[in-house]
Amino acid sequence: MFNKAIAKIKEWFPAPEVHAHCDGPCGVYDPSAARINAEAVLSMTKKILDLQPPAAGDQNAMATYQNTITRYIQIKEEQAQLTKEELLILWTDYFKPEHLQKYPDLHDTFWKAAKLCSACKVEVSLEHANQLMESVQKIHQMFWATKSRDVAWYKAS
Amino acid sequence: MFNKAIAKIKEWFPAPEVHAHCDGPCGVYDPSAARINAEAVLSMTKKILDLQPPAAGDQNAMATYQNTITRYIQIKEEQAQLTKEELLILWTDYFKPEHLQKYPDLHDTFWKAAKLCSACKVEVSLEHANQLMESVQKIHQMFWATKSRDVAWYKAS
Amino acid sequence: MFNKAIAKIKEWFPAPEVHAHCDGPCGVYDPSAARINAEAVLSMTKKILDLQPPAAGDQNAMATYQNTITRYIQIKEEQAQLTKEELLILWTDYFKPEHLQKYPDLHDTFWKAAKLCSACKVEVSLEHANQLMESVQKIHQMFWATKSRDVAWYKAS
Amino acid sequence: MFNKAIAKIKEWFPAPEVHAHCDGPCGVYDPSAARINAEAVLSMTKKILDLQPPAAGDQNAMATYQNTITRYIQIKEEQAQLTKEELLILWTDYFKPEHLQKYPDLHDTFWKAAKLCSACKVEVSLEHANQLMESVQKIHQMFWATKSRDVAWYKAS
Amino acid sequence: MFNKAIAKIKEWFPAPEVHAHCDGPCGVYDPSAARINAEAVLSMTKKILDLQPPAAGDQNAMATYQNTITRYIQIKEEQAQLTKEELLILWTDYFKPEHLQKYPDLHDTFWKAAKLCSACKVEVSLEHANQLMESVQKIHQMFWATKSRDVAWYKAS
Amino acid sequence: MFNKAIAKIKEWFPAPEVHAHCDGPCGVYDPSAARINAEAVLSMTKKILDLQPPAAGDQNAMATYQNTITRYIQIKEEQAQLTKEELLILWTDYFKPEHLQKYPDLHDTFWKAAKLCSACKVEVSLEHANQLMESVQKIHQMFWATKSRDVAWYKAS
Repeated sequence: MFNKAIAKIKEWFPAPEVHAHCDGPCGVYDPSAARINAEAVLSMTKKILDLQPPAAGDQNAMATYQNTITRYIQIKEEQAQLTKEELLILWTDYFKPEHLQKYPDLHDTFWKAAKLCSACKVEVSLEHANQLMESVQKIHQMFWATKSRDVAWYKAS
Repeated sequence: MFNKAIAKIKEWFPAPEVHAHCDGPCGVYDPSAARINAEAVLSMTKKILDLQPPAAGDQNAMATYQNTITRYIQIKEEQAQLTKEELLILWTDYFKPEHLQKYPDLHDTFWKAAKLCSACKVEVSLEHANQLMESVQKIHQMFWATKSRDVAWYKAS
Repeated sequence: MFNKAIAKIKEWFPAPEVHAHCDGPCGVYDPSAARINAEAVLSMTKKILDLQPPAAGDQNAMATYQNTITRYIQIKEEQAQLTKEELLILWTDYFKPEHLQKYPDLHDTFWKAAKLCSACKVEVSLEHANQLMESVQKIHQMFWATKSRDVAWYKAS
Repeated sequence: MFNKAIAKIKEWFPAPEVHAHCDGPCGVYDPSAARINAEAVLSMTKKILDLQPPAAGDQNAMATYQNTITRYIQIKEEQAQLTKEELLILWTDYFKPEHLQKYPDLHDTFWKAAKLCSACKVEVSLEHANQLMESVQKIHQMFWATKSRDVAWYKAS
Repeated sequence: MFNKAIAKIKEWFPAPEVHAHCDGPCGVYDPSAARINAEAVLSMTKKILDLQPPAAGDQNAMATYQNTITRYIQIKEEQAQLTKEELLILWTDYFKPEHLQKYPDLHDTFWKAAKLCSACKVEVSLEHANQLMESVQKIHQMFWATKSRDVAWYKAS
Repeated sequence: MFNKAIAKIKEWFPAPEVHAHCDGPCGVYDPSAARINAEAVLSMTKKILDLQPPAAGDQNAMATYQNTITRYIQIKEEQAQLTKEELLILWTDYFKPEHLQKYPDLHDTFWKAAKLCSACKVEVSLEHANQLMESVQKIHQMFWATKSRDVAWYKAS
């Protein structure tokens, strides 16, 4: 079935140009971009869970609490969205039919990772944020393997 | 293999919330959004191909030509990007493991459609712009079938 | 007075080019775009009103509540803004002096619809969200009437 | 007819909150924002018209020419769009039914100004760019008159 | 040390083109843009501090409160970000080595102003919002002095 | 003089919170983001210079040429802007008065790097694109030195 799919895709895109992280032909792909965003999702998830609501009736403390938690949630949302976008650029522009032959779970890996990005928006879940980091690490390894390069995985935080 | 993939995905997302076109839980998905954008891609592709360059040496005509073709290219780029985003929201948020069982070519359909969006940016190709419209129409039919609704396909232009 | 206004406008724009939904000359206008967004505004308004605050003192439940309500409010805001933008593109680019003659309440219809978009941001009002849907439906009918086409009104949700 | 329109609008918006330039309730409206953008549109229009195409066959000069004119066109496009957005925020959020009574040509003034923004995108027209500046100046005067303030009109360039 | 820095910068940018507020060569710089945004930051800060939380148990009042405070916080965030961007365009594009000689505290002035923008996001602080307005006013004066123009400082609110 | 500046800044920001790449408190800074963007600027600069204009009179070839060069220029513009934004987040949010004491050329390093981003937009200059890469590498080293970490510099392309 994969062979059929690959043949069909190849027929549609006979000479695929090399695209890149910017969704353009710059040839500069790097899963680090997704990793930085996913780290922020994990960091924000922790901070939201750790934030203590103020005592009822303290209007100033409530203003500060609302300001902080609203910003954390917005940043988590934005960073989860950016993680998704960076990953989908790899899936739609970098990976090609020949990669699908080597990695038959390519589509599922990206589908799962993209759904994890959405889950990290909807929920405040340490478990899913950690799974997202693992997905990004798996994609990092698949990606550099296709280029026969050994780029070390590290975290900024 | 699909069953295995579905089981894995289901394990990860035991109770998937209903998401929507806005990448949020509004429950309002409609492939029309992608269709409107894809129509614009096709329209711009035609206009770019039809635009006649000015005679050399006419500075005013050159300014007008450059203004027009640059805008057409920008609009094609933007609309192809929006088509891609609208389609990928359906793929990552609306479609679920049970749909994959019913449509085993779900992933390939969206991969091909997303790659067509990129091709319509890189090229000025009537053929690919028309194929993109066909992909969007196919997705329109798959989508409404999952809801057992019969929504007519129409074009605005 | 309308005739005077029309004459003045015509004098300013002697040969108006056909613009489109993308604010460009693609000729692809479709009020569906505004309708999808307005449906999301209505859906989010309902969900915000239905969401129950957690008991005081449950920090985890508070994190989840804040995450959910902040996202609902953000999506409502964004979708109301997009509804406004889609409507104003029709008003500023599609509708022309000859349409104003046929629909003397054109300006007021759009002014009211745009103000409803703002009201749906400022408030959590089912009444205004429903009125916005009615405004969009009215504009849908005016729009397709100018094209002598009979496009059915439907909702995605 | 205006009275009828005003009555209808007032009925819909019984207690309009004061909105602002940010499309929010900050109460900070200032037509200067639109004026700065419109000045940029005029400046870019001039520069596009003044730019001399290179001799055929000089590849380096062509790269520089394309880079410069594409950027000028993009900036003109972006600034015309921002002018439109700033003006429409005034129209949809600041101006209220009581202002319409005082300025019966309120709607036409803004419709014309918005259509000029679109014309300045589509064309490379000094005439329309200058008319846009005049429209913004007229709106500046109407706006500050409603606040009984005398704010001097100046240009940054 | 400044002379050395200036020499180095001059060596790198032998013939700096005049850039502008749009980060392009339109020549239209005006610190008013930053001032309008900073006024909104101050206004929102006041409104957040003044907003009274509802009594516990009133679900409708809680929905309204959350909608209002979330929007205020988002607008403060967005306007503080825009203030920062407008100021940094002046610093990176308008001000040149010769200005640094005249204003040796140029870098520190902008660094402090940019850090104030961030502080106004993180906190709900009237003191920092007022200091931001003072920073913008100081930059307004430095800016117009370099052009030998006397443009009055005013506030829209 | 630096001591004075530092004292003044410290007085303003007595307890600076740790900010991050997302302009939020996630603690995830990584100059890789700027490096990926700067690589794209360099790559696009090369491609623009290498692109051969078509023979006069070939309308199809002209459409393709315009599509390609306009996209390259847009991507260069966007990536240079993103490089600038990523760098300025480090300057305004990560680096603090104590770092200025250790790196007295901190401000000049960032000013020069930001001006290089603008130069890479205005020009099609291999020399400036290479200098931008060097600036980003210098900042990479300064940044990780402040964290006493040894993160290897690599390029994705």
